[in-house]
Amino acid sequence: MQFCSHCGHSISRLTPPGDHLPRFVCTACGTIHYQNPKLVTGCVAEWQGRILICKRAIEPRLGFWTLPAGFMENGETTQAAAARETAEEALAEAVDLHPFALVDVPHVDQVHLMFRAVLKDGRHAPGPESLETRLVQEQEIPWEEIAFPSVRFTLERYLEDRRHGRFGFHTTTWERKP
Amino acid sequence: MQFCSHCGHSISRLTPPGDHLPRFVCTACGTIHYQNPKLVTGCVAEWQGRILICKRAIEPRLGFWTLPAGFMENGETTQAAAARETAEEALAEAVDLHPFALVDVPHVDQVHLMFRAVLKDGRHAPGPESLETRLVQEQEIPWEEIAFPSVRFTLERYLEDRRHGRFGFHTTTWERKP
Repeated sequence: MQFCSHCGHSISRLTPPGDHLPRFVCTACGTIHYQNPKLVTGCVAEWQGRILICKRAIEPRLGFWTLPAGFMENGETTQAAAARETAEEALAEAVDLHPFALVDVPHVDQVHLMFRAVLKDGRHAPGPESLETRLVQEQEIPWEEIAFPSVRFTLERYLEDRRHGRFGFHTTTWERKP
Repeated sequence: MQFCSHCGHSISRLTPPGDHLPRFVCTACGTIHYQNPKLVTGCVAEWQGRILICKRAIEPRLGFWTLPAGFMENGETTQAAAARETAEEALAEAVDLHPFALVDVPHVDQVHLMFRAVLKDGRHAPGPESLETRLVQEQEIPWEEIAFPSVRFTLERYLEDRRHGRFGFHTTTWERKP
């Protein structure tokens, strides 16, 4: 951040009075430009025992498999955001959403919130950000080609809970590799 | 947003190619300035059966009672953010945090994530953003002076779960009043 988005003046990095962290501050108009973590929402969606996965058509991790997920937009709920991402990335309709996993990703200022869901009619196809979509059985999951640790965590907990016949809400922190 | 924070050029509102929503776009340097919901994290923290509440010293809802909570910062986890807010607003140490309630607040582009916790030693006192802090029993909760619907929702679910001896994870949407 170099310039004030409100008045166009150059930005200073300083700790405002009463604050405890340095912020991007405009000394011309007084605006403090806070920066906060972003929420990524998505679904582990099932159809007749199979789970919907998407092969990424974009970086990062192009060609690796993921669950449909992406940045939440202003004006929507977390559930609506997760269903929208499923519609965009897998052209699939996720219904009956329940919060399932929360993964803190502090090294990139993100929080990943995954819902469990079912598909309304089993239909799916790759959207613009996917190369391919599949409904896979547990033994067909490409564990060696999973895009992100938060996707792996969600899939592992989901399969475990499903085996036990009872779904919980799971949290973890995705630590940056040393 | 009037100016590009990257290059200082004036900003246009347009839908980028391949996108489906209008964004703040700089036609000079090409930067797309996405805007996303903010996470508010906090605690319902207990000490010997009493719950920690704070009387707000700042707007909005100055003088009303709340649970310690505030905007999550970059670089922290949701749990760390909730504990930090408890330390800042009530000078209290929250430990043993578990996710408890998620409240979507789409009309102000926020998601409120509340943890249940216990206080390490029962100590508390008002921080700069609080006029007063209290540890209250259930019958002492000032229901008529609760600052926000998300705080009311969290307190109600907490007391109900505590009566049943089993804590879940609860979600709701805070709808804007008509």
